[in-house]
Amino acid sequence: MLYKKRLMTPGPTDVPPSVLAEAAKPIMHHRTPQFRKILTEVVASLKRVFQTEGDLLIYPAAGTGGMEAAVVNLCSPGDHVLVASCGNFGNRWTEIAKAYGVQSEHYEVEWGQPVDPAEIQKRLAADPSIKVVFTTLSETSTGIESDIRAIGEIVAKTPAVLVVDAISGLGAIPLKTDAWKADVVIAGAQKGLMIPPGLALISISAKAWETAKNAKCPKYYFSWEKAQKAMKAEALADTPYTPSISLIIQLAESLRLIEAEGLEAVWERHARLAKATQAAMQALGLKLFAPKQASNAVTAVWVPEGVDVSKLFKTIRDVYGITLATGQGKVKGKIFRIGHLGYADDWDVVATVAAVERALLEQKYAMTVGSGVAAAEKVLFGI
Amino acid sequence: MLYKKRLMTPGPTDVPPSVLAEAAKPIMHHRTPQFRKILTEVVASLKRVFQTEGDLLIYPAAGTGGMEAAVVNLCSPGDHVLVASCGNFGNRWTEIAKAYGVQSEHYEVEWGQPVDPAEIQKRLAADPSIKVVFTTLSETSTGIESDIRAIGEIVAKTPAVLVVDAISGLGAIPLKTDAWKADVVIAGAQKGLMIPPGLALISISAKAWETAKNAKCPKYYFSWEKAQKAMKAEALADTPYTPSISLIIQLAESLRLIEAEGLEAVWERHARLAKATQAAMQALGLKLFAPKQASNAVTAVWVPEGVDVSKLFKTIRDVYGITLATGQGKVKGKIFRIGHLGYADDWDVVATVAAVERALLEQKYAMTVGSGVAAAEKVLFGI
Repeated sequence: MLYKKRLMTPGPTDVPPSVLAEAAKPIMHHRTPQFRKILTEVVASLKRVFQTEGDLLIYPAAGTGGMEAAVVNLCSPGDHVLVASCGNFGNRWTEIAKAYGVQSEHYEVEWGQPVDPAEIQKRLAADPSIKVVFTTLSETSTGIESDIRAIGEIVAKTPAVLVVDAISGLGAIPLKTDAWKADVVIAGAQKGLMIPPGLALISISAKAWETAKNAKCPKYYFSWEKAQKAMKAEALADTPYTPSISLIIQLAESLRLIEAEGLEAVWERHARLAKATQAAMQALGLKLFAPKQASNAVTAVWVPEGVDVSKLFKTIRDVYGITLATGQGKVKGKIFRIGHLGYADDWDVVATVAAVERALLEQKYAMTVGSGVAAAEKVLFGI
Repeated sequence: MLYKKRLMTPGPTDVPPSVLAEAAKPIMHHRTPQFRKILTEVVASLKRVFQTEGDLLIYPAAGTGGMEAAVVNLCSPGDHVLVASCGNFGNRWTEIAKAYGVQSEHYEVEWGQPVDPAEIQKRLAADPSIKVVFTTLSETSTGIESDIRAIGEIVAKTPAVLVVDAISGLGAIPLKTDAWKADVVIAGAQKGLMIPPGLALISISAKAWETAKNAKCPKYYFSWEKAQKAMKAEALADTPYTPSISLIIQLAESLRLIEAEGLEAVWERHARLAKATQAAMQALGLKLFAPKQASNAVTAVWVPEGVDVSKLFKTIRDVYGITLATGQGKVKGKIFRIGHLGYADDWDVVATVAAVERALLEQKYAMTVGSGVAAAEKVLFGI
């Protein structure tokens, strides 16, 4: 039987056909007015998507490389920083800080819960030497969204700089970088931006540049100063080392799609898909892992009693063509995750819920066939 | 008038159509047996191209990221290392070392000359504390090839580890990593490997792993240990962070092309194109910048008296469709460079020489029209 391939994961996400087609065009040299014009337009469009008038840099790297760039450009060994984590990716901030001898105060909530802005405020008050607060917009491992607006207001009143991992959140979840006072925001390519992985994108506020001036962590490849110098050297943007030319050209097309749909409409679509997925899972009697501040990028669901999650995941992927995600870190085997991120529409969610129903049914899970899709439809149809 | 676009630069190089087509296929998830099988095969094929049975890691990064990975995984702050440089990219080794507080003894020859293995031997004898020797296989800025075999023999007799930047050399110039005792070799994607930029590839010998054990430079994203753990964790290769999926899938196809042509044949083709280009330039009365140990990847040529090199370069690129490279660093404005690297054949060289002839003629440079292409043909035809 034919089942089309669908990536319903929190990244990589399906790439729109017109974006795929860009990669099939002959490569161009990067030190040309042609490419630099594209790069300049990509940066301008990215700033609109980031909602920032600050600076924006692009590195050939996984998102983790962008996180490391923030640590080494903002910190010195021995500096105090605060990590506000609600999962596996939040914890990565502390791992990176440790690798550079940066003293991380690690505030981690129970997985499935959001971080509490009031707790961040308390900890900043208790240790005024905290130089940077690191947190996560959409915690991919648990399906939680952090209240960046509230955290931004708190951090802005202190000398500390706020750094947000928005790798799986940007382009999916409202994030108003400047208005919400997120000094540094890191995004990835293969999530809301709908291109193949390999780019780390970073916005930097004036306050962050000030902090960066005194940062003594060693760096070369990820140096913001070098990248910024190339970006601003002449009228057209440039990079210090060879950029990922084909990915940037693909990004130009995906940004055209995002701007044509409209950023607000993109956010609304993600919110609708998330709500529909949540409603469908609950209608099937499944329990949401993150009932509070659920992320619009990914829905995490407890594996019900008697269901073999590994088998469920493989059946849906290998038989029905839809790739979901399982649990990672301390919730491995306990949850599964449905991504509704990037190039995904209402019918992708309906199809995914139907496939989950079928695979659950095959494991003799007690449910009413069609109840999940009906619940999804009610949300999607607005009734 | 129609002129097709040709990239005759030392990278990025033209991408073969079948490799471009791979990028237009739908993206697949990386944590799947399907992708991990491809990655496993890519690594096995790369080892044949590197001529190594050592370990091989792949990072989403520019080549410079791969160079930084070698420094931070092999060195501790304060360590003594020797950099043997014959140009701009060789000098980068010292810049990276400095950024991490590593004491670099900087041996730099006059640009246009190759490094002298005997000098490396002398300096290693004078300072037995030297832990790593960094050098360059094909120095892109000057068109010089280093004698890695001779350097490898010298370094192998000491406790030092030999690190070779083969970013523009691998797949173009003979390099027998294990036989020549090159402990760490770094390659890039957009050169001899004929894919778009965005990957750094690194081979690591057992001796290098021993040195890496005691290396105290801070690192996270570029940690070899973490990458190796993922690579060897199970039967199929994996990566610690999201890999550049589309580039790796393109690499699988380009490696199929390289292995079908045969590595020896690929090396011979590059040697033939280099000799033809050199002969053509000399027949036109132009002077080679690197007459000794010229690189098979790129030919550097002195700009003759009375020729405006910027105009020459722009005419050939913007009117005749062929992108060459100008000089960088201290030879900016003094040389121009012709890449004959990766996906390039005999007729590309003939076409390029003809375009150079035409652009020179337009600048009233005194020459016999056709003498360059005739000289190239003689080499290409083996007569």
